[in-house]
Amino acid sequence: MPRKIQIAVIGDSQPSAEVAGWAEEVGRLIARHDAVVVCGGLGGVMAAAARGAAQNKGTSIGILPTYEATSAAPDISIVIPSGLGHARNMLVVASGDAVIALPGATGTLSEIALALTLGKTVTAIRAWSHIQGVSVVQTPQEAVQQALHAAHKKVSDGRN
Amino acid sequence: MPRKIQIAVIGDSQPSAEVAGWAEEVGRLIARHDAVVVCGGLGGVMAAAARGAAQNKGTSIGILPTYEATSAAPDISIVIPSGLGHARNMLVVASGDAVIALPGATGTLSEIALALTLGKTVTAIRAWSHIQGVSVVQTPQEAVQQALHAAHKKVSDGRN
Amino acid sequence: MPRKIQIAVIGDSQPSAEVAGWAEEVGRLIARHDAVVVCGGLGGVMAAAARGAAQNKGTSIGILPTYEATSAAPDISIVIPSGLGHARNMLVVASGDAVIALPGATGTLSEIALALTLGKTVTAIRAWSHIQGVSVVQTPQEAVQQALHAAHKKVSDGRN
Amino acid sequence: MPRKIQIAVIGDSQPSAEVAGWAEEVGRLIARHDAVVVCGGLGGVMAAAARGAAQNKGTSIGILPTYEATSAAPDISIVIPSGLGHARNMLVVASGDAVIALPGATGTLSEIALALTLGKTVTAIRAWSHIQGVSVVQTPQEAVQQALHAAHKKVSDGRN
Repeated sequence: MPRKIQIAVIGDSQPSAEVAGWAEEVGRLIARHDAVVVCGGLGGVMAAAARGAAQNKGTSIGILPTYEATSAAPDISIVIPSGLGHARNMLVVASGDAVIALPGATGTLSEIALALTLGKTVTAIRAWSHIQGVSVVQTPQEAVQQALHAAHKKVSDGRN
Repeated sequence: MPRKIQIAVIGDSQPSAEVAGWAEEVGRLIARHDAVVVCGGLGGVMAAAARGAAQNKGTSIGILPTYEATSAAPDISIVIPSGLGHARNMLVVASGDAVIALPGATGTLSEIALALTLGKTVTAIRAWSHIQGVSVVQTPQEAVQQALHAAHKKVSDGRN
Repeated sequence: MPRKIQIAVIGDSQPSAEVAGWAEEVGRLIARHDAVVVCGGLGGVMAAAARGAAQNKGTSIGILPTYEATSAAPDISIVIPSGLGHARNMLVVASGDAVIALPGATGTLSEIALALTLGKTVTAIRAWSHIQGVSVVQTPQEAVQQALHAAHKKVSDGRN
Repeated sequence: MPRKIQIAVIGDSQPSAEVAGWAEEVGRLIARHDAVVVCGGLGGVMAAAARGAAQNKGTSIGILPTYEATSAAPDISIVIPSGLGHARNMLVVASGDAVIALPGATGTLSEIALALTLGKTVTAIRAWSHIQGVSVVQTPQEAVQQALHAAHKKVSDGRN
């Protein structure tokens, strides 16, 4: 059985209701396509993406900044309590075969920049158009489609 | 749906056939009890534990030292290509609700010591009796039973 | 004897001659003010800042991505061969009482974003004006003056 | 000017007065030989080694587990506030051209095991004789002499 595609979902820990809705839909769509959500494991966009994945019986990985497994959002399936602080941001994007970025602040920006440094495809929903190398789309559907396409291409090319 | 128990399995990357057999049995038993294997994702004990888990349709997490997802052992379900080098050892044990140690070298010893530092229960199979705090058992069955017991107790106590 | 101020200097590993000249001047000025240069320890802006510091008998810290101490630029005084890959970017900015950013690519952007996440003052020389929170100046002199001012204020406020 | 030798000093954060005295003497001797102390930056053996170095106008590097530069022991010259939690143990030993281990608990053991994994010479003072690969001596003088010898040999061999 081949390994499932993993999509990193990043964004604000305190998003607007609209952005949280996008994140939940992103999680639902990733799970519907039998892929795995990877995120930072805490609140906001992270919790919403995990919730969406759970609604479709999908799997979500939460890479936490602390050693506190109990700090994970309720719907996270698997916790990595890294204890690495903000350096865990690196692991979130390194663990995605592609990355979907929602609106966010400097933590999200650091993840985008690290993802681009690693050569990952980064698709953003209505945000981050000022960052060179980010592909901006308008809907969760487009973002998941683009991310899955990039991830499948990467895996079939044998890239990391 | 509550999060599944996660058991870290550590040991030599070049084990004897006997020790590899123990690791595979440990993986099978963890999966049979609906728990998840966490390991370093590469060869030897890591690959064998993942193979055992796969035989019982279980899940295994491989936390790799490099960014090379393709370096993961074939049966790993989910890869965390950390890029952290040996510092990824810390994440392997931090991600286990309990730890099972097989015979190994200094890399395994560093994981045991880090696990004890984090207050994790460490159960070893016929090894590591010279390390204070490690509980030594004789069989994979005893190791998995003891690790699951410690993990369930930890989770029900609300500890991390 | 109070601890010396530490200034993180970040930027391209393959800068233009002009930008390398700015980095060298930044290193010289930091050392002249008895502060310490912290950088990623490799080539380009990093090597130039260390060279500048050495010209004024100053100290430079190089936090390397690998375990290879011998990969450090020639003028680095102290090496931290972290083995952490790109996650070492986090340590570079965390080790600065303030941060000076020269032109660069996504690696530099990740460091800027992480620095802002940690609440550090980030002063850029003729670059990064599109990143909210970065203060842009025109010369190495202004950058060092601003960074030292922010660092002294932080230290006297007892902040980390 | 060639880079100075760096010696990692590890041990208990709550040592006996005798062990703290050994650590201070180790720090003094390292500084007297114009080498640099690297340690975890906090209390006990770490603080004592830094104090000893300061008594001989030497340099000490403190690699802290948190982002709190102000948590460093008073005599630390240079702080690396890593934010990496226990994973910072890896950096302490990776930054030593050789390692001196004093009596300690599981945190110290993890550092010894990581140092051995990296191929570093580990010299212990009246402790750790049960760990294969550790060289045990009786006095701070012998430990520093042995560590400096190993470090100089490593550097002249061009090893990392």
